[in-house]
Amino acid sequence: MYKQAIIVRQDLKLPKGKMSAQVAHASVRAVLNSDKKKIQDWNEQGMAKIVLKTENEKTMLKLLQNAKDNNIKTAMITDAGKTVVTPGTKTCIAIGPDEEEKIDEITNSLKLI
Amino acid sequence: MYKQAIIVRQDLKLPKGKMSAQVAHASVRAVLNSDKKKIQDWNEQGMAKIVLKTENEKTMLKLLQNAKDNNIKTAMITDAGKTVVTPGTKTCIAIGPDEEEKIDEITNSLKLI
Repeated sequence: MYKQAIIVRQDLKLPKGKMSAQVAHASVRAVLNSDKKKIQDWNEQGMAKIVLKTENEKTMLKLLQNAKDNNIKTAMITDAGKTVVTPGTKTCIAIGPDEEEKIDEITNSLKLI
Repeated sequence: MYKQAIIVRQDLKLPKGKMSAQVAHASVRAVLNSDKKKIQDWNEQGMAKIVLKTENEKTMLKLLQNAKDNNIKTAMITDAGKTVVTPGTKTCIAIGPDEEEKIDEITNSLKLI
């Protein structure tokens, strides 16, 4: 069973619409980085996706590195900063889709938003 | 210039995390339904994406039909309803990515979330 996790920085306090767009960016970018067969399987399984929170940039980058060290495809979104945040702000990351167990191992201490 | 619009029902009053996941579902599904060359161009152009609101299911379905009538790729998300909404609830739609002008023509009366 495949699953994707998207992890958002809480210290930025992104408003609802902005956050949704950033989460979608991360999700799509990780999908475009991934193996086609995996995406097809994930899609057929219902495209499981969870949105989680992390404290700040430092904790987010640690999770990203952890995923990379485990050979999981990732994406990180850097915002152009035209509206809500400073240009170049790293807002969120996506991890996977990949095996549920592999994703959970990295994200199991995180809480749903 | 390509752009994607994701339109969310406001009457459901989805919480932040739930809404973000639904928006990402819609965005990814529309991407998977789309022509590869178009997705590649959109990606290179910075993957422009806006999240808009619509009143209810009826107004959302009208927008969906309008996009289909204009030969724009779409996706509609029906939630399994395990947590926040009733099973089978249609939560949001994605329109495009497609030419900015075509997307704007359909969505120009809608407001950002």
